[in-house]
Amino acid sequence: MKIFNVIVVGCGRIGKMHVENLLAYFPNVTVQAIVDDNVDSEWAKSLGIPNILQSDQLDAALSDPSIDAVIIAASSSEHVNLIQRVAQAGKNMFCEKPIGFTPETIQVAINAVEQAGVILQVGFNRRFDPDFSRIQQTVAHGEVGLPHIVKITNRDPRRPDLKFIPRSGGLFLDFNVHDFDTARFVTQQEVKEVFVMGAVLVDPKIGELGDIDTATISLKMDKGTFCIIDTSREAVYGYDQRLEVFGSEGSIAADNETETRTQLSTADAVFSETCLYSFVERYQEAYRLQFEAFFATLAAKSSAVVGANDAKQAVAIAVAASESLRTNRPVSLK
Amino acid sequence: MKIFNVIVVGCGRIGKMHVENLLAYFPNVTVQAIVDDNVDSEWAKSLGIPNILQSDQLDAALSDPSIDAVIIAASSSEHVNLIQRVAQAGKNMFCEKPIGFTPETIQVAINAVEQAGVILQVGFNRRFDPDFSRIQQTVAHGEVGLPHIVKITNRDPRRPDLKFIPRSGGLFLDFNVHDFDTARFVTQQEVKEVFVMGAVLVDPKIGELGDIDTATISLKMDKGTFCIIDTSREAVYGYDQRLEVFGSEGSIAADNETETRTQLSTADAVFSETCLYSFVERYQEAYRLQFEAFFATLAAKSSAVVGANDAKQAVAIAVAASESLRTNRPVSLK
Amino acid sequence: MKIFNVIVVGCGRIGKMHVENLLAYFPNVTVQAIVDDNVDSEWAKSLGIPNILQSDQLDAALSDPSIDAVIIAASSSEHVNLIQRVAQAGKNMFCEKPIGFTPETIQVAINAVEQAGVILQVGFNRRFDPDFSRIQQTVAHGEVGLPHIVKITNRDPRRPDLKFIPRSGGLFLDFNVHDFDTARFVTQQEVKEVFVMGAVLVDPKIGELGDIDTATISLKMDKGTFCIIDTSREAVYGYDQRLEVFGSEGSIAADNETETRTQLSTADAVFSETCLYSFVERYQEAYRLQFEAFFATLAAKSSAVVGANDAKQAVAIAVAASESLRTNRPVSLK
Amino acid sequence: MKIFNVIVVGCGRIGKMHVENLLAYFPNVTVQAIVDDNVDSEWAKSLGIPNILQSDQLDAALSDPSIDAVIIAASSSEHVNLIQRVAQAGKNMFCEKPIGFTPETIQVAINAVEQAGVILQVGFNRRFDPDFSRIQQTVAHGEVGLPHIVKITNRDPRRPDLKFIPRSGGLFLDFNVHDFDTARFVTQQEVKEVFVMGAVLVDPKIGELGDIDTATISLKMDKGTFCIIDTSREAVYGYDQRLEVFGSEGSIAADNETETRTQLSTADAVFSETCLYSFVERYQEAYRLQFEAFFATLAAKSSAVVGANDAKQAVAIAVAASESLRTNRPVSLK
Repeated sequence: MKIFNVIVVGCGRIGKMHVENLLAYFPNVTVQAIVDDNVDSEWAKSLGIPNILQSDQLDAALSDPSIDAVIIAASSSEHVNLIQRVAQAGKNMFCEKPIGFTPETIQVAINAVEQAGVILQVGFNRRFDPDFSRIQQTVAHGEVGLPHIVKITNRDPRRPDLKFIPRSGGLFLDFNVHDFDTARFVTQQEVKEVFVMGAVLVDPKIGELGDIDTATISLKMDKGTFCIIDTSREAVYGYDQRLEVFGSEGSIAADNETETRTQLSTADAVFSETCLYSFVERYQEAYRLQFEAFFATLAAKSSAVVGANDAKQAVAIAVAASESLRTNRPVSLK
Repeated sequence: MKIFNVIVVGCGRIGKMHVENLLAYFPNVTVQAIVDDNVDSEWAKSLGIPNILQSDQLDAALSDPSIDAVIIAASSSEHVNLIQRVAQAGKNMFCEKPIGFTPETIQVAINAVEQAGVILQVGFNRRFDPDFSRIQQTVAHGEVGLPHIVKITNRDPRRPDLKFIPRSGGLFLDFNVHDFDTARFVTQQEVKEVFVMGAVLVDPKIGELGDIDTATISLKMDKGTFCIIDTSREAVYGYDQRLEVFGSEGSIAADNETETRTQLSTADAVFSETCLYSFVERYQEAYRLQFEAFFATLAAKSSAVVGANDAKQAVAIAVAASESLRTNRPVSLK
Repeated sequence: MKIFNVIVVGCGRIGKMHVENLLAYFPNVTVQAIVDDNVDSEWAKSLGIPNILQSDQLDAALSDPSIDAVIIAASSSEHVNLIQRVAQAGKNMFCEKPIGFTPETIQVAINAVEQAGVILQVGFNRRFDPDFSRIQQTVAHGEVGLPHIVKITNRDPRRPDLKFIPRSGGLFLDFNVHDFDTARFVTQQEVKEVFVMGAVLVDPKIGELGDIDTATISLKMDKGTFCIIDTSREAVYGYDQRLEVFGSEGSIAADNETETRTQLSTADAVFSETCLYSFVERYQEAYRLQFEAFFATLAAKSSAVVGANDAKQAVAIAVAASESLRTNRPVSLK
Repeated sequence: MKIFNVIVVGCGRIGKMHVENLLAYFPNVTVQAIVDDNVDSEWAKSLGIPNILQSDQLDAALSDPSIDAVIIAASSSEHVNLIQRVAQAGKNMFCEKPIGFTPETIQVAINAVEQAGVILQVGFNRRFDPDFSRIQQTVAHGEVGLPHIVKITNRDPRRPDLKFIPRSGGLFLDFNVHDFDTARFVTQQEVKEVFVMGAVLVDPKIGELGDIDTATISLKMDKGTFCIIDTSREAVYGYDQRLEVFGSEGSIAADNETETRTQLSTADAVFSETCLYSFVERYQEAYRLQFEAFFATLAAKSSAVVGANDAKQAVAIAVAASESLRTNRPVSLK
């Protein structure tokens, strides 16, 4: 089995999770270095990571020919710059979403990657979720016929920390960008038109910060499928993640996952579990499988299964959604 | 469409339900008379029943040649006598279960019916329940292969009135007789051996009256299938009625019915409905369909779909179950 | 119990169903006459309806003081005229939806009814469905908090006969008018704005006749709730009828009903039943309960639980939906 | 965090799984050596295990004071001998079930462990399954009241290799020993009496080898709860693992786990997934959690959460079950 030496850049909540997954599930992957100015060093030490670097040491580390790949999980605003530097160093990379907040910015990253001829996989983890990927395959095999309507429910269990809102990019870029990718993924179509109804229903402070927290989003895909997304920053019963594709020959739907399948029946009611509470538990398997795909791509020197263009398209839809919300009009995508 | 004139004998809770079902669903059936010494006359009048008779008027009524059939829903202890009289009058009949409390008593009824050449259908309504009959058909079509294990759950929502216990015939004859019939129905096999574990867990007063309220019953069928029945006089969450047939090629199971399919998700739990509360709601459709079968049998002059021998076999199993409980030994049936 | 003598005007598929339900479930209701020029007389005779009238005999029949109410289930185009005549005769009435195809037409009916001081209940049967009404009550009791998003799925099992399309009023007026009423019913809010994406995906012939067969409809309610409706003229797996209300404190949803709760597990898959095939089975209970409400209203001389204004509002939304589809713009309601 | 150095004895299918779980989930556990005469050395090398030993090197390895614990996953027939040797070396240990095939043999192991004052945890992994342990906790908290009936379904997806049958100990000792432990676990009661109905229904060759493949087992617990187990060596639809506890105040049940929650609806049926195929997938989490408990016990120097006495009791029930099958009589346990 080929051994991969990787550097992980950025070790906040997501970066740590990636490091732990790499150590747990990928015996052939060695995390050679972590690059983070504020790393949790006790945590890093307990895992036996050999090198803990400051951000100004990254370029030196990239020049090490034994390094095979870089995992980028730094702040979103640094992604494009990091992608450029990693590409220039000739290394393959995985980058968390969002790569950037406009299609133009992402194009800069695409250019860098293409020029360098390296692989860039983007962190649209939901494509690797067993439920969602089963739906995609079922649709691709024609088992529901021509897809007519896609329904996506994406509701977070708890409104984010208000400090996060200003640098989040807003609801569409931060949160629904996943749904836009899911719509493209399950239909294998591009989005032609977007219409949004949205408002601040969860927390007025989110509105004061210029964002919304509740929306319904309608998409028209380029081969005729419609898609509706309903989304909220807060579902008190947990992380509500459902997907349905309805077509000429049938329908396939994924319901929420729960921790157990127990049901308690009493004189009052039948109680079952609420859905899993956060993306960490809900997409645990997806996070593992996206790295499996990444290293398989590296081994095969093939092209990324989820590439920078997917990131760019999803962001373009998010930008159009913002415009639709602002103008209260459907917005076409070029 | 052929018109049927019927007499209903016995109008307690079940008899009333039968009358109302006949009026609601069977435009071609006329309830010519009700025979009950303590009839709820206001109720009967409101339904427009032409004749409300005392029990000593039954034989005269039976001599009316326009009467096509008799529905017997009187006290169980009178069933055999009534069956004999109706048979002697040459009328077809439907009789509620149990026909009698011993196989020998039921044989008396069988003899009367056979001698008179009339039709007697027995009220094992669960055979007509859409769920249970779907299972029976699926098994009969071989879709689960050879049946290996049958599982029946039969739990009443609320312990019966203690006054009912002494004349009920006991748990097995009153309550599980349905399960014994279901085991025979879905396997199309006879019972060879019975073993019971049972006790008084719900209400000590039931024990003082010589009965039990909780049991597990194991049956060995004559072509090798096993059957386990778990039963209780009180399930606080409702009338728990489940059936499963597991075989060499798969399994088919029926879950409980509920009034609606709504689910409420809150921060605490997902709440759904408890099962339907009583046999009236749970087997409403079955009660209707068993009369459909009865009148179809009458019209076709064919033999009863659930006959007196089915009643006799179920009672024989109940008697063996009682013996098993008493002796703590498996008991064989001849 | 008060006895009600009714006349049923129009005995096509729906009218027949109403007559049969009245006979089966309402012992205190007598169908005195059926008015239909093309009545199925064998059917009517078998039910023992005393008078089978031609449409030109209606006014004479209405002058009979013993008549308490009229059930209108004639062609939609005749509804307003019939309502006027029944109102002028001083009779209470139940009228199938749609009352008319424009809010203005319906206003004519409203005026007639108000002037005459009679009761008019409109056939929005889904309000009486046990699942939907449970949801409405749960929302009204505040159990999901403030409603943020309502989701309605309304998919017919089979495209309608093409001959029906031109006189149907179109998808929104014929089919989604129920959903518009449901949105109003569960939120107790009025619709402020409508946006539609729609197309012909099921059958190009429906497009040739000027209608569409697939749509997603977004509603903004006047107290801030959003509603999304996804609809199709053909779901091959049956009549897909789901409703969900998501709010600040939780969510309540109704799943589809099926004939049985059986599940067959084989080496290949677990098979369960598709949803009920048509509105007749799915809303059987709702059809009964709406008449229960109607006769209760008559007895109490109270105002209709679903009145002509509800019909008018639903039609106004349908008209706005058509305009939105035509202009590809959100359309405001006054 | 305390570091634990362990030796794993026996690296067949289960032993390998344990090693891989230890490496993946327990950063503070080092597998210092594997002891197996037929080890898959390529597999062991790829995992970087430092020492791969023959069985005659075990005692020397045990004398190494740096070793903290031993995981025993060798052939069942060697378990008691291994436990004695590990205990004499003063090491704590985890041992796969079954420890032995008779209560007397297991007593030998218990004596050795008690004399040495070491910890022995037994591999009844199902106690750690999130569904089963949720049920145990719910019952322990009194949420279903006094338990009246426990129902356990244990069906293997595929009959075992016939070569395994003779050394398996038979259906009860090999397979249902888990269920006997589950009955004790959820009720916190001991078994008083066992009755079995069993036969060869899956494969006559299993019968030729002196075993059975299908059974229903009835248990009477010492505080009055009844338990019924239905079991089969082959359920074509997968590894069917269900548990239900019914009591005076309600019922709690765990349904099967599936890989995804997708449902495909077509004109024919609604298709969902069969249950997980084998114990490896079904009890993956339980296998991890039982080691978590083991190392927590070691760190706390407390007593084993599942000890040798639990193994002895389960085996005693299995032995009684065999006698019941042989004699067709209920068998009491001392």
